[in-house]
Amino acid sequence: MNTVSGFSKFTKIQKIDFLAENYFNDPNSIRDLIQSFWHSDEKSQMTFDEFSENTITNFFFPYGVVPNLLLNNKSYCVPMVIEESSVVAAAANASNYWAKRGGVRAEILSFEKIGQIHFIYKESRQSLFDFFERVKPEILREVAPLADNMQKRGGGILEMSLKDLSGLEEGLFQIFMTFDTQDAMGANFINSILEMAGRLFKEKSQKEGISIEIIMGILSNYTPKCLVKASLSCKISELEDPKLGMSGLDFAKRFEWAVKISKADVYRATTHNKGIMNGIDSVILATGNDFRAVEACAHAYAARSGRYQGLTEIALTNDTFNYSLEIPLSLGTVGGLTSLHPLAKLSLTMLGNPNAKELMRICAAIGLLQNFSAIRSLVTSGIQKGHMKMHLLNILNHMGATDEERELAKEYFKTRIISFKAVSEFLSSRRILQ
Amino acid sequence: MNTVSGFSKFTKIQKIDFLAENYFNDPNSIRDLIQSFWHSDEKSQMTFDEFSENTITNFFFPYGVVPNLLLNNKSYCVPMVIEESSVVAAAANASNYWAKRGGVRAEILSFEKIGQIHFIYKESRQSLFDFFERVKPEILREVAPLADNMQKRGGGILEMSLKDLSGLEEGLFQIFMTFDTQDAMGANFINSILEMAGRLFKEKSQKEGISIEIIMGILSNYTPKCLVKASLSCKISELEDPKLGMSGLDFAKRFEWAVKISKADVYRATTHNKGIMNGIDSVILATGNDFRAVEACAHAYAARSGRYQGLTEIALTNDTFNYSLEIPLSLGTVGGLTSLHPLAKLSLTMLGNPNAKELMRICAAIGLLQNFSAIRSLVTSGIQKGHMKMHLLNILNHMGATDEERELAKEYFKTRIISFKAVSEFLSSRRILQ
Repeated sequence: MNTVSGFSKFTKIQKIDFLAENYFNDPNSIRDLIQSFWHSDEKSQMTFDEFSENTITNFFFPYGVVPNLLLNNKSYCVPMVIEESSVVAAAANASNYWAKRGGVRAEILSFEKIGQIHFIYKESRQSLFDFFERVKPEILREVAPLADNMQKRGGGILEMSLKDLSGLEEGLFQIFMTFDTQDAMGANFINSILEMAGRLFKEKSQKEGISIEIIMGILSNYTPKCLVKASLSCKISELEDPKLGMSGLDFAKRFEWAVKISKADVYRATTHNKGIMNGIDSVILATGNDFRAVEACAHAYAARSGRYQGLTEIALTNDTFNYSLEIPLSLGTVGGLTSLHPLAKLSLTMLGNPNAKELMRICAAIGLLQNFSAIRSLVTSGIQKGHMKMHLLNILNHMGATDEERELAKEYFKTRIISFKAVSEFLSSRRILQ
Repeated sequence: MNTVSGFSKFTKIQKIDFLAENYFNDPNSIRDLIQSFWHSDEKSQMTFDEFSENTITNFFFPYGVVPNLLLNNKSYCVPMVIEESSVVAAAANASNYWAKRGGVRAEILSFEKIGQIHFIYKESRQSLFDFFERVKPEILREVAPLADNMQKRGGGILEMSLKDLSGLEEGLFQIFMTFDTQDAMGANFINSILEMAGRLFKEKSQKEGISIEIIMGILSNYTPKCLVKASLSCKISELEDPKLGMSGLDFAKRFEWAVKISKADVYRATTHNKGIMNGIDSVILATGNDFRAVEACAHAYAARSGRYQGLTEIALTNDTFNYSLEIPLSLGTVGGLTSLHPLAKLSLTMLGNPNAKELMRICAAIGLLQNFSAIRSLVTSGIQKGHMKMHLLNILNHMGATDEERELAKEYFKTRIISFKAVSEFLSSRRILQ
């Protein structure tokens, strides 16, 4: 068993040596491979190394752009970081398609972040609520210095209330707090305030002989009131496009079916929403935001009715195609990685240094366009055609295929399933024959 | 408005020039910055460029490792790619903690992938079911060549059934198919079969004068029967650890409360699951898998009861602490990026070239350990202590703080909220004073 102690104290070189020697057959070439992914500037590389722990190198994800997002009558060039082929192409196609049809509209519906302190209390409910109301102004006053800077930027603590969860778990209560964190995602701000508020609440309860046990205080990634809506709208006749292979009306009706299916069936809803997130996460990654937070929130929101459903809405009324996405997105354009990662900074500059609300609108727009593009493929030519073309090219490039081999492979795989192994076998058989 | 046409046809250099000149004040330094993230080997860089579209460079994510995962009595060194500080450290701490307590156990509970063909049909329900049963063997026979290679590897099509969704949407029916895709994630395999099966179903219905309209055929990312379970178990007395600051029993009880809260409250459940995914996604990224697919599936699964809840289960019985995570994970260790990205390949080699099931177990183990670590912090010292230490060091490094300044800053920020701006102001004020 390859157990090791004190690994985190090793230098980076020692870590790589340990890995190379214990997990690989050819330590020297592995060392070279790992180092080939370092940034050539040593100081920059140190920054990347220190974002996380036990780091040995950088993982590369392709950084692409969608040049023509028309959103609220303004044109954006949107950076997207994503390993999956076709995602950027689909967003770019849909952007171009909709730029000719008035572009995307997007608006912020609400803007608040959430934090909670959970505690146990087993005595009179009424005296707890009385006590809470009494100490609430004191607690808010005492944590206020922590919110000073945020208040100067126009944010701060919004509300603080007590919730009784004892119907769900005996003795469980919750202090529910809402915040405006302006252009910061706000995790550190919120967590610092919650931990202090929890300590104060505990101290004050002890003084009054009230027995509470604080379990924990932490922000919630579920922010259903940090909500943005993006929408697409045009006359159904304007949907006409020779590439559809059908009339605008037929396309609109098939599209409507696809959305209905995402409402009726959880299997389809999951993939429908996954497609939306393909677009959104690409921008999240490019701007140094936290995709796990955004994913968790979006999917929990998709289940808010008690049934997990697709996040988009369609209405074909008065000969108009109306398609929209309402999604909670808690994002930051200051703080965290946004200031520390040179490419996150580059992304934000490329977007014109948006504030958090503008970034929410951009992400929602890209998510909706991404989904539009996926549904358009699905209800017309099917999704495999474009996908497989990209995948085949990737594999052929990787194998260093000649131009002639590429053409033969494209022909051969028109009717066959493309896989790394199948392409490799096809090429070797050709190469042996020649 | 900076609209541009034909952007996708530009060479990479032309794309960068266009961006540099239209979106940045200092085009030359931006060109240099973008190029500084290219791989030094031109051919390797071409591979990365061609993973996606409109690519200009690579986004760097820190690649770290967790050296001592003890899982089913085998030790692994686990690669993790993540931009959030503390995630790798938390996984490593929990790995070490549990390696002394028997490690993690994990097992595959089920292993099937899913695809669907949705169609509209408005006549007799019974004749449709009769027709389906009649043509099903023909369709399976005719698509079989597409499954040839997969069958050689032990996989293939498992089941094909007809579902009536007309109660939810009038006229909506679904062909539901299940697959064993072995060590491939299987998207291309499944989608190719679905699209062909859909065409065949349509052709056969036309021949019999049955009026159906195929809307679409595509895999589902919701795979509740591709399920892995990871668990941790030890005597409660064995939980004792001076770092907890409390007895093993008190810790276990507070931990149990944290899990109960994740069952009772959607706000907490979302963040609870987000923490699990911090760990899982890091391995997903490092091994070239698709995190959007895994995220969508995990969260839809968390909502399967009709209420979105935490994914872990706890039982304190017979003086034993039992903690487990059941999560659907559809992963691949062959195909897709796993063979094409040199670091995805490196990751898989480091893990001992696992098959898909082994990778499922590793991911579930890391997800559970990640969550254990988060809950342990939350119910003991709080989460901010460790978090903020890391964040402060990141910022100080970025600003090139001296050793003396670091010490002063650590002291100063013990009682203050750490932000890029606050640290910058602190350092400038010190620097002016000196």
